[in-house]
Amino acid sequence: MTTSPFDFDRYDHIRPILWTGDTLELLDQRKLPFVVEHVSCTTSDEVAQAIHALTVRGAPAIGIAAAWGAVLGARDIEADDGEAALMKLEPALQRLNAARPTAVNLAWALARMRRVLATSGPDWREVLAREAQAIAEEDLAANRHMGALGAELIAPGSGVLTHCNTGSLATAGFGTALGVIRAGMAQGRIGKVFAGETRPWLQGARLTVWELQQDGIDATLIADSAASHLMKGGLVHWVVVGADRICANGDTANKIGTYQLAIAARHHGVKVMVVAPSSTVDMDTASGDFIEIEQRDPGELFGVGGHRTVADGIQAWNPVFDVTPGSLIDAIVTERGVVLEPTAESMRAVLG
Amino acid sequence: MTTSPFDFDRYDHIRPILWTGDTLELLDQRKLPFVVEHVSCTTSDEVAQAIHALTVRGAPAIGIAAAWGAVLGARDIEADDGEAALMKLEPALQRLNAARPTAVNLAWALARMRRVLATSGPDWREVLAREAQAIAEEDLAANRHMGALGAELIAPGSGVLTHCNTGSLATAGFGTALGVIRAGMAQGRIGKVFAGETRPWLQGARLTVWELQQDGIDATLIADSAASHLMKGGLVHWVVVGADRICANGDTANKIGTYQLAIAARHHGVKVMVVAPSSTVDMDTASGDFIEIEQRDPGELFGVGGHRTVADGIQAWNPVFDVTPGSLIDAIVTERGVVLEPTAESMRAVLG
Repeated sequence: MTTSPFDFDRYDHIRPILWTGDTLELLDQRKLPFVVEHVSCTTSDEVAQAIHALTVRGAPAIGIAAAWGAVLGARDIEADDGEAALMKLEPALQRLNAARPTAVNLAWALARMRRVLATSGPDWREVLAREAQAIAEEDLAANRHMGALGAELIAPGSGVLTHCNTGSLATAGFGTALGVIRAGMAQGRIGKVFAGETRPWLQGARLTVWELQQDGIDATLIADSAASHLMKGGLVHWVVVGADRICANGDTANKIGTYQLAIAARHHGVKVMVVAPSSTVDMDTASGDFIEIEQRDPGELFGVGGHRTVADGIQAWNPVFDVTPGSLIDAIVTERGVVLEPTAESMRAVLG
Repeated sequence: MTTSPFDFDRYDHIRPILWTGDTLELLDQRKLPFVVEHVSCTTSDEVAQAIHALTVRGAPAIGIAAAWGAVLGARDIEADDGEAALMKLEPALQRLNAARPTAVNLAWALARMRRVLATSGPDWREVLAREAQAIAEEDLAANRHMGALGAELIAPGSGVLTHCNTGSLATAGFGTALGVIRAGMAQGRIGKVFAGETRPWLQGARLTVWELQQDGIDATLIADSAASHLMKGGLVHWVVVGADRICANGDTANKIGTYQLAIAARHHGVKVMVVAPSSTVDMDTASGDFIEIEQRDPGELFGVGGHRTVADGIQAWNPVFDVTPGSLIDAIVTERGVVLEPTAESMRAVLG
């Protein structure tokens, strides 16, 4: 990996996942931006619950949290070697894996943990902890590298629009799409940052603009439905988003609304960049047609933070993700390289 | 106007504007759906304030409210004829006109009031009240007629998606786009109704699904950003929306998000219907480039109903309307007829 000559540290202050050596401290993202509070997990099931409840969220972050969850799950296991430990740990790993269905990083991180465990000897406990640490450190390094790669695509003076939260809060630090925005700001390429609210969970309004504010980056909040009107005004040159799963042909599952932004972007000649570590790429899934889309409680559309806005007895449809076809994406940025105009061929050339 | 053989009354129970003979009772739409409460206005300035504060909203409804506001403004005026009364009433009319800038119905209704007043004699006070009553009654009749005209365009078994609130609450009754949905339900043409939340004011979540529920119509609420994902699934055949101003070439100003829906609809082969009385059509404005877009307080994006969700010190951009080009609209339905594939020529043929 290359190192950047830019002062990325200036824009990177937040760490959502802290391992203390015996507990996992998760910054409670349900309470941000008003309460900055950590939830302590001491068992793997507490971690699974925290992932399910969105205490920790963001595809890379939940992979890292699950890896530490595996370490916690192994604590009370007695075994002479890794293979024996893995057999005992497997039920806990499966509960972690089931906490969120769409993000592939979760399964990817747990697969890494299984792999090192299966081949380790009496020191399997230390091996497992080192692997979790490596997953977290590699994620941060990957994000900084992706930031530099993605920023190179952005012409000086550009406006960018992002969706959901893909920042330090969604990763080990620095972020994926927000990492590109941080790098673009550090390099003076980005003039203006816009963030969609991201209903129903308002990750953009609650998390992204707050996170960027912590690093001194002004972002202007818009309603998700205002994106096309903004693009028509010529103030946006790139839509920069993260991903929960990228298929072999570049089809990308990401937060609900991403697909709509990509359609609007194409209509206005605005470019679309997807930024995600290669752990998000699922070369075994041929296209978006095969991705399971998580449906969450319709009640998430019935109000905000306990303030109900909708009458009783109303029905709602609440898919959490949608699939943006690779044909609407201009660049997929991973730490292993950039795929321009993704197709099965161009994806294989970089990531195969 | 034709009368419909269908039982439209079954789907039409709500009246947002009641004239008691000496006060104007406005259903307070800021408090719906949990509190059904009327605000009493006894002066024209109270009506102007109610329009500005969104107590009453919806382009046709604010035109009707403003007409009654003119009647209230005339109450304390002494004059021998309408022309003399108009001179004294003019400042109040101008304050009413300034309450919302985008909806053309407001100016249209006040122009009607001015016109009848200018040519009336000693009975000018009764003439003015009759004109306000006529504006309200004509609106209801127009909505029922438009409902029938619009429903004819919809094939049996169709799914429809609407945005904002264009119903009884936004008009004298029955609604514009929701009138078409009511008529389509009465005729058995519509299988499924979806409604976007409509951030930031949540007219869809707070008003539309509630209003339809009162009439026994089930509507499924979606996040505004989920519309494209819904369309991809093939469940929506028409996007049916209202309008705040329709230009001579069919360009249509409507609630923020309409433009984005129209782009998504075109991408998926879904059709777009705009439903509005001819009072919404502004043949003096050549295209959407000349429409002033109302910007509201960025604070509307900072939370919901007093529940703040965004950190302090955040910037937001909050345009209330956007302009959908006529080229993305398949049908404009008015009480004077339907314009298919609107252009300056086809608009003039029906509405010139």
